[in-house]
Amino acid sequence: MKRNLGELARLVDGEFQGDEHLTITGVAGLEEAQQTDISFVIGPKHARQADRSRAGALIVPPGLRDMQRPLIVSENPYLAFAKILTSFADEQRPVLGVSPDAYLGSEVKVGSEVSIHPQVYLGDHSVVGDRVTLYPKVYVGAGVHIGDDTVVYPNVTILDRCIIGKNVILHSGAVVGSDGFGFAQDGRRHFKIPQVGIVQIDDEVEIGANTTVDRATMGKTWIQRGTKIDNLVQVAHNVVVGEDTIIVAQVGISGSVRIGKNVILAGQVGVAGHLEIGDGVRVGAQSGIPKSIPPGQAVTGSPAIAHRTFLRQVQFIQRLPELSKRVKDLEQRLEAMEKATDS
Amino acid sequence: MKRNLGELARLVDGEFQGDEHLTITGVAGLEEAQQTDISFVIGPKHARQADRSRAGALIVPPGLRDMQRPLIVSENPYLAFAKILTSFADEQRPVLGVSPDAYLGSEVKVGSEVSIHPQVYLGDHSVVGDRVTLYPKVYVGAGVHIGDDTVVYPNVTILDRCIIGKNVILHSGAVVGSDGFGFAQDGRRHFKIPQVGIVQIDDEVEIGANTTVDRATMGKTWIQRGTKIDNLVQVAHNVVVGEDTIIVAQVGISGSVRIGKNVILAGQVGVAGHLEIGDGVRVGAQSGIPKSIPPGQAVTGSPAIAHRTFLRQVQFIQRLPELSKRVKDLEQRLEAMEKATDS
Amino acid sequence: MKRNLGELARLVDGEFQGDEHLTITGVAGLEEAQQTDISFVIGPKHARQADRSRAGALIVPPGLRDMQRPLIVSENPYLAFAKILTSFADEQRPVLGVSPDAYLGSEVKVGSEVSIHPQVYLGDHSVVGDRVTLYPKVYVGAGVHIGDDTVVYPNVTILDRCIIGKNVILHSGAVVGSDGFGFAQDGRRHFKIPQVGIVQIDDEVEIGANTTVDRATMGKTWIQRGTKIDNLVQVAHNVVVGEDTIIVAQVGISGSVRIGKNVILAGQVGVAGHLEIGDGVRVGAQSGIPKSIPPGQAVTGSPAIAHRTFLRQVQFIQRLPELSKRVKDLEQRLEAMEKATDS
Repeated sequence: MKRNLGELARLVDGEFQGDEHLTITGVAGLEEAQQTDISFVIGPKHARQADRSRAGALIVPPGLRDMQRPLIVSENPYLAFAKILTSFADEQRPVLGVSPDAYLGSEVKVGSEVSIHPQVYLGDHSVVGDRVTLYPKVYVGAGVHIGDDTVVYPNVTILDRCIIGKNVILHSGAVVGSDGFGFAQDGRRHFKIPQVGIVQIDDEVEIGANTTVDRATMGKTWIQRGTKIDNLVQVAHNVVVGEDTIIVAQVGISGSVRIGKNVILAGQVGVAGHLEIGDGVRVGAQSGIPKSIPPGQAVTGSPAIAHRTFLRQVQFIQRLPELSKRVKDLEQRLEAMEKATDS
Repeated sequence: MKRNLGELARLVDGEFQGDEHLTITGVAGLEEAQQTDISFVIGPKHARQADRSRAGALIVPPGLRDMQRPLIVSENPYLAFAKILTSFADEQRPVLGVSPDAYLGSEVKVGSEVSIHPQVYLGDHSVVGDRVTLYPKVYVGAGVHIGDDTVVYPNVTILDRCIIGKNVILHSGAVVGSDGFGFAQDGRRHFKIPQVGIVQIDDEVEIGANTTVDRATMGKTWIQRGTKIDNLVQVAHNVVVGEDTIIVAQVGISGSVRIGKNVILAGQVGVAGHLEIGDGVRVGAQSGIPKSIPPGQAVTGSPAIAHRTFLRQVQFIQRLPELSKRVKDLEQRLEAMEKATDS
Repeated sequence: MKRNLGELARLVDGEFQGDEHLTITGVAGLEEAQQTDISFVIGPKHARQADRSRAGALIVPPGLRDMQRPLIVSENPYLAFAKILTSFADEQRPVLGVSPDAYLGSEVKVGSEVSIHPQVYLGDHSVVGDRVTLYPKVYVGAGVHIGDDTVVYPNVTILDRCIIGKNVILHSGAVVGSDGFGFAQDGRRHFKIPQVGIVQIDDEVEIGANTTVDRATMGKTWIQRGTKIDNLVQVAHNVVVGEDTIIVAQVGISGSVRIGKNVILAGQVGVAGHLEIGDGVRVGAQSGIPKSIPPGQAVTGSPAIAHRTFLRQVQFIQRLPELSKRVKDLEQRLEAMEKATDS
């Protein structure tokens, strides 16, 4: 498909420079871009690389508006790039309807303009909204609801009664609604507590590949609007994650944890059970969270402490051999003085 | 379905208080419970919340038997709750037989009262016990044995020749019998060692969503009776896990490790290869285990040390800036004395 | 199948001792081996166990050539064992052709002697090389290329346009080509950056069960020849992994990281974004890598430091209570001296 420079500038609320009618056929990195591609420069340190680029046009921040070539000037070139890339990517998904090679249970409701691919399984009483895409091999359990415009990639499992919002993206291998890990002690045996709650995933959430979200023991495990979860993350039963939170790959969140909005959990973080992580908290990679964290804090470490304190602590630990030597030196000097004084 | 208060009390070896014939139709949390639900109170700190609950009856510990409402008094209210919840959940699974949309290889043996859903694959010579449920998209390799009453959720993969016991639960995305990670060095190249062993999973084991259990190089990887494994856990080749052990999410167990019975490995723990973890050992979250641990110990940290020592160590580390300051102070005072003595 | 001792010795460039025509029908561990099996002894410490073994023949290092029984003497008995085991395992895979129960999209190209099992999905314009095995439930997206002799286990997902080399092994539940985790900030909202690149996996790579390899934002995520990746590993968008590298289970590699060749990342390691890990680097289990590492180094810890320094650091930390006591002792002695001097 084709666009021209002026159209793209308007799409991103940017300003174009050069020929408004310049044809753009795609988006590419500075090095790969060809003559009809647009590329982007986030900041001045890439200016030189940009100069050499064969791209037909560039998205640049205001500080680079003097470059003598077709430009779109934007306050946020990365966001502008994302929007232009989206506009090129959007038109590619055809509407397939319901494949005769999909399996539909009884009383399934399917909206309009859906793409339900071969080898999909839709359980009894499941409801699929308009313009939903279910790729091959998706499993949708009984009584599941899937909102409009949601995309579910191959080999995703959505178990009975879970509720998926609109514009949600579920990546391959994700499991939504597996049993929470709950047992009562019966002597030495572990007696399984049935997990009869559900998972609710709100609008605009994205769930990464092979991530698992357990259903609640009772009630619901709940991922709120706009939150983005990366691959191989574990979300245990009865967890609530607030809006617009970012959870990076391989994070593990224990049962009944409540996470606020606009939180960032970096990769491989672990959160112990029943804690509250306040709004806007930022947790460094591989941290372990043993107690609740008030809003707005930045913490790191296992057990996690204030991020600045952690950095200082690392330095003190690295200086331990030196400290130890200083103590030994003090001991020798003091002993010498003690001897001198005795005599 | 309906139960009455007396029946439920007998089910859990508890004592009822109030009308034996009171009708109970479900189980719910204190806040969600309605008039025909039963709810539960684990200890006195929830007594107030219980007072406000609209639940028709409550399961309480002996200390709360004075509440003026229908009760089941139990020494272990959580276990009683689990058992009652199970009795309500149990009756819901219909027997489907073998779906014509499942794929059966040659010489497959299937027991009675099974539910083999559409899109299941059963390999040649596989054997499925009585009352087994295989949800859609389950893959069962050639020569696999699955014991009676086992439940296998959608998208589980059980590879060739593995043996699954009775009353086992395998959650979605779990992989049983993938190749162990074994290579011999052939110069710089890694020469793959064929993994010709199997995985054996004994009765009453539960395996979490997207957990992987590798087959043995030779012999078997073995999960013994009653052990419960959470989501996204890695169990490498030739590992043996004893009975009634708990392995929390995202734990990684290296090859040929032997884990005892009644062990608890908390979330994100890593265990190095060829170690022995004794019976009853408890390992704190995110710990790294570099050497074998005798029975009964509680350890934490990476590398793991005795749990109490770890807690003390954390405190000492947090006091490092202060210790460093005290050493500096000593140096200054000693220097002052040395000067005074010199003069 | 049957082999004789002489053939097997030639296969591994070893020397046989005893009857060249001795029949060998399989490979087994020292304890399990029966009279027509061959087993192996890596070093002298297993010599006694070998003596008791009922194996018909043994693979031994040169130091054990004096054992009075049929032997293959090899400089690298483990590699010889792997090669012999491979020769017995190789012949078992029958050629199935394309199952009528597989789903093939339009313009799919399939090579000769393939085994495409039931319930496989092959997207439009996908290309499958000669002697490829696609087990049941494999998903192959549109435009994917799969090279000759590659084996893809059940429930693997290969998304659109990804390129898989020759002799590659993809284990169950692996996801190749899921979206990278990339967002641009649009006020508080996270605006998804379309991930339009691909994943390229080169010849002889092995990818573990439930491992995820994200596609590039633009360009490609690239795993180079001979690299072996274990289970539950996360490889983010635009990562490049060099040749013959080993990545153990549950490692997480952030976006745009470049890893050299012959690197070893032990289990549960995390690597922060945009770093370079040089050729031959070795990283200890559970380490966190916050900055680039030059070639050849061995590092451990979170944050990672030189492996030797880490071991020393652990010792200094363990001696902190003692160090603290020594400082207290110094304080008391110094105070006593100060008092004495004052008076």
